[in-house]
Amino acid sequence: MKIETLRHSLAHILAQAVQELYPGVKFGIGPSIENGFYYDFDLPKSITPEDLIKIEKKMKELIKKDIKFKKKIISRNEAKKIFKKQPYKLELIDELTTKTVSIYESGDFLDLCKGPHLKSTREILENSFKLTKIAGAYWKGNEKKPMLTRIYGLAFKNKKELEKHLKFKKEAEKRDHRSLGQKLELFMINEQIGAGLPIWLPKGATLRKIIENYLYQELTEKGYQWLYTPHIGSRKLWETSGHWNFYNESMYPPLEIGQSLEDVQKGKKAKIKEEYLLKPMNCPFHVCVYNSKIRSYRDLPIKYAELGTVYRYERSGTLHGLIRVRGFTQDDAHIICTSDQMTEETVKLVKDAIKMLKDFGFKEYNIYLSTRPKKYVGTIKNWQKATKTLEYVLKNLKLKYQIDPGGGVFYGPKIDIKIKDSIGRDWQCTTIQFDFNLPARFKMTYVDRKGKKKEPYMIHRALLGSMERFFGVLIEHYAGAFPLWLAPIQIWVIPVGSEHRKYAKEIAKKLKEEGLRAEAKTEAETVSKKIRQGEIQKIPYLLVVGDKEIKNKTVRVRKREKGDIGEISLTKFLKKANIRIEKKVEA
Amino acid sequence: MKIETLRHSLAHILAQAVQELYPGVKFGIGPSIENGFYYDFDLPKSITPEDLIKIEKKMKELIKKDIKFKKKIISRNEAKKIFKKQPYKLELIDELTTKTVSIYESGDFLDLCKGPHLKSTREILENSFKLTKIAGAYWKGNEKKPMLTRIYGLAFKNKKELEKHLKFKKEAEKRDHRSLGQKLELFMINEQIGAGLPIWLPKGATLRKIIENYLYQELTEKGYQWLYTPHIGSRKLWETSGHWNFYNESMYPPLEIGQSLEDVQKGKKAKIKEEYLLKPMNCPFHVCVYNSKIRSYRDLPIKYAELGTVYRYERSGTLHGLIRVRGFTQDDAHIICTSDQMTEETVKLVKDAIKMLKDFGFKEYNIYLSTRPKKYVGTIKNWQKATKTLEYVLKNLKLKYQIDPGGGVFYGPKIDIKIKDSIGRDWQCTTIQFDFNLPARFKMTYVDRKGKKKEPYMIHRALLGSMERFFGVLIEHYAGAFPLWLAPIQIWVIPVGSEHRKYAKEIAKKLKEEGLRAEAKTEAETVSKKIRQGEIQKIPYLLVVGDKEIKNKTVRVRKREKGDIGEISLTKFLKKANIRIEKKVEA
Repeated sequence: MKIETLRHSLAHILAQAVQELYPGVKFGIGPSIENGFYYDFDLPKSITPEDLIKIEKKMKELIKKDIKFKKKIISRNEAKKIFKKQPYKLELIDELTTKTVSIYESGDFLDLCKGPHLKSTREILENSFKLTKIAGAYWKGNEKKPMLTRIYGLAFKNKKELEKHLKFKKEAEKRDHRSLGQKLELFMINEQIGAGLPIWLPKGATLRKIIENYLYQELTEKGYQWLYTPHIGSRKLWETSGHWNFYNESMYPPLEIGQSLEDVQKGKKAKIKEEYLLKPMNCPFHVCVYNSKIRSYRDLPIKYAELGTVYRYERSGTLHGLIRVRGFTQDDAHIICTSDQMTEETVKLVKDAIKMLKDFGFKEYNIYLSTRPKKYVGTIKNWQKATKTLEYVLKNLKLKYQIDPGGGVFYGPKIDIKIKDSIGRDWQCTTIQFDFNLPARFKMTYVDRKGKKKEPYMIHRALLGSMERFFGVLIEHYAGAFPLWLAPIQIWVIPVGSEHRKYAKEIAKKLKEEGLRAEAKTEAETVSKKIRQGEIQKIPYLLVVGDKEIKNKTVRVRKREKGDIGEISLTKFLKKANIRIEKKVEA
Repeated sequence: MKIETLRHSLAHILAQAVQELYPGVKFGIGPSIENGFYYDFDLPKSITPEDLIKIEKKMKELIKKDIKFKKKIISRNEAKKIFKKQPYKLELIDELTTKTVSIYESGDFLDLCKGPHLKSTREILENSFKLTKIAGAYWKGNEKKPMLTRIYGLAFKNKKELEKHLKFKKEAEKRDHRSLGQKLELFMINEQIGAGLPIWLPKGATLRKIIENYLYQELTEKGYQWLYTPHIGSRKLWETSGHWNFYNESMYPPLEIGQSLEDVQKGKKAKIKEEYLLKPMNCPFHVCVYNSKIRSYRDLPIKYAELGTVYRYERSGTLHGLIRVRGFTQDDAHIICTSDQMTEETVKLVKDAIKMLKDFGFKEYNIYLSTRPKKYVGTIKNWQKATKTLEYVLKNLKLKYQIDPGGGVFYGPKIDIKIKDSIGRDWQCTTIQFDFNLPARFKMTYVDRKGKKKEPYMIHRALLGSMERFFGVLIEHYAGAFPLWLAPIQIWVIPVGSEHRKYAKEIAKKLKEEGLRAEAKTEAETVSKKIRQGEIQKIPYLLVVGDKEIKNKTVRVRKREKGDIGEISLTKFLKKANIRIEKKVEA
């Protein structure tokens, strides 16, 4: 039995239960979905989540009756008669192009349905399903049509699997970066400013700065050169790059910068139209920098890096916290090199990516190699060569990977790395993309060994992906309990009484001098309340100091998740904390 | 004698010389300007810069003739007769509302002119003036009117002052950040990307990163909290903030983000208009962060800092390198505090500004206190109080300042600091502005000691002003020879021959490990050429290494501007260089 069949049959049982409880109900549709099923109803009265218990009880009663699912093929007219009181079903029948109609009968319930279904409700194991929520849904997803009531359910093969899923969902909810982001004051998204435009709050900004510094150091050492480029570019630039045509579904309409807002408000028109576009990518800017002087083969590879904030069109309904936004900062880079250097550079990129993701605590990942899509630029020969290079690199590094046929970008094949977080979810992260488009479009050249002009190769790559998205993943991966080196606040020093405040401040000062992010919590609150707050805020270390600690020149250390780990000297604590920071490992 | 009188009289002499050399010339106007004068001519033939020599010679001949300037008051009709062949003068006469007309006669030249003038050309000292350039200028600055030929001249009291000015101009030209920016590969502005949108090239980006890190450290220590905010915000936000009406002359028209470029290209219209604006300021975002939770008097002052890139409308004709641009990054901050904290916070801001400007090598500055303009928000009482606070602060710090009456922003009075560069030019830099507008508009509150809601005070401030502008000033101040701590490349290690390359690389590696920005110059070029290149690139230290240095485990140090300063051990050199870096003083 396919799990989808089970789920679909449960949708019918749900409809049957609703039919018995709410006579006169009109039925929409009821498919199986990921992890469960739903059914849309036009109910004679509105229902609340409490009603779900009643409906679920009724479903269980029906299931116990060992109801059989029977398929029947009937004529359209017969179907119309059967569903004469069901306007939505009639609409569906009218849309059918077939002469006959397939319906399913289960007990007193009849549905327009292709199947397949279970033979009998006996196949549904006890406590293997659960109704979860009610939502509004327009008939056929069209906001001009009536709003129906959708009831969702989860369904699995057995009770154990359902419980496993519920546990996973609960765990995922606890880790939801949107609620943690608010609780820990890491970021905010504000409707007054705009949907999909996150603001990094002070604690989030501290964490971002740590990531930025990490990237700056790592990449500078590896020979990357940094750039800062503007957030808008002339229409001409985007026409030259091809984004104007090939990437227009992700770009915003042009902005007129040849006049001021005041001019527009007064109805004045600009003499010359100066159209600019918010950048959806940094590439054309980096290419212009490359093209700003003559380049020799001796200069290659040139690696330009930028933390460039780009803006991409997303429908407001698809936005999701930091994961799907309208403005985000890519840890972007472009490697411009000769044909000979492609393999070596790609090896470095893959190795660097894996190394860096590991530094952030991601040890597992899935690698995808995406090949030529239907719409593409460049020659087949170049595509084959580039794809072979990518394959060679992955094989050479002994990395497992999957092929995503036709999943490449229009301008070249790519390698994607999806990281697995601590509860096993995949997150798209690194992307390494070959580009056959921009070097030709911008007439990029270098002078080769023989003094001849040649077109270089170009690789786009983002290792973390975007700062916003990666931050979201980090929050969910660690459930907000960041490792010491990433924690916005690493240490709270908590005085037992007001007479210990001075010592607490001294300790905090010393910790700060050692480069640690420490705060003395000298507010007039109880120690236990402060400890509780520190735990909620997921501070890695809470150092409690009272008479004894002052006398012994020590601190009492409470480690996150571990609790009290004893009284030690500050020097010992510093040694411990510092060493761990250097190793970028959770202390 | 006022210098303007001398300059104006020279304009007449210029016109007389042109009249003699180019009979039939039609005269426009000829005023005195800063450092000299000009005259606009409608010439019977076009002239080249070479002709200026001839004209200047003729002027000198006229001056020697001891020509007297005589004023005459005549009737309009008389004037019209005199200037009957001078259409531009006739146009000016027609525009006069007076019954009589003032004219000046000097030798054979007659001009419509109010004066005053010198008594005689005898007052013009030898070699105190110089014709400098020819430019096109529309009659009355109106592009629909005829294009006239404008001849510019410099004029000073005497030869010495003219020469001083010429020397200054030459020095300023050598320091021009636009040419140095290109020569030293610090930044670029590219028409393909857009006018007024600078790109920081790798070396400039390195310098920027140093400044960013400096700001981050300095301000974090001082209790600032960092934010990252988006570059666009909804129209509603800017309407609430008042920018939509009060700042619209500096803003760009709205951008429609409820649809994609593709939609627009296909002629599809968005269902709901979602208008967004490129941010001209960061303030509204910081205010939204403040408003995101309840604030207590205990939390104040709150200081939000951001390196926020803003976009402001400038006509393309007014753009100038990094100094006047369309997109720039402010080192912005907002201090939100209680009324009681205003004085202390302002003292800190002024002190911090002066300290930080000093760190960057600016020791002299002029301070301006700008008071209430005609168009303003807030009560007179608050304006008076705030202005007094600013005055009190400056007096208390024993700082000299000038009042700029009515020069405040519509939302409050301000203190501006203009720094003096190494050749005495003023550059607008720090601004500290009180704000009576946003706290009220955004209904900002805090809970005071008694549990009552109160409106906080807000101070905007930018210490360096903008990163782009400040970078431009830095380049001109140092003529590109940045102090060691700011130099994008601090050290080149130059091997004498190919056999010394390995040692050069070792030295460079050690320097890098010490945190210095060093490069081994191992290209196949002569030592002398590399040294020359190093001098052109204004590298602070060139370390030359050959047999002797390898044997002695030393380096031969060439210091910028000083030349060879001897052979020393790397340890000694490191000590020297490192200590100086910490002190942020030119080594």
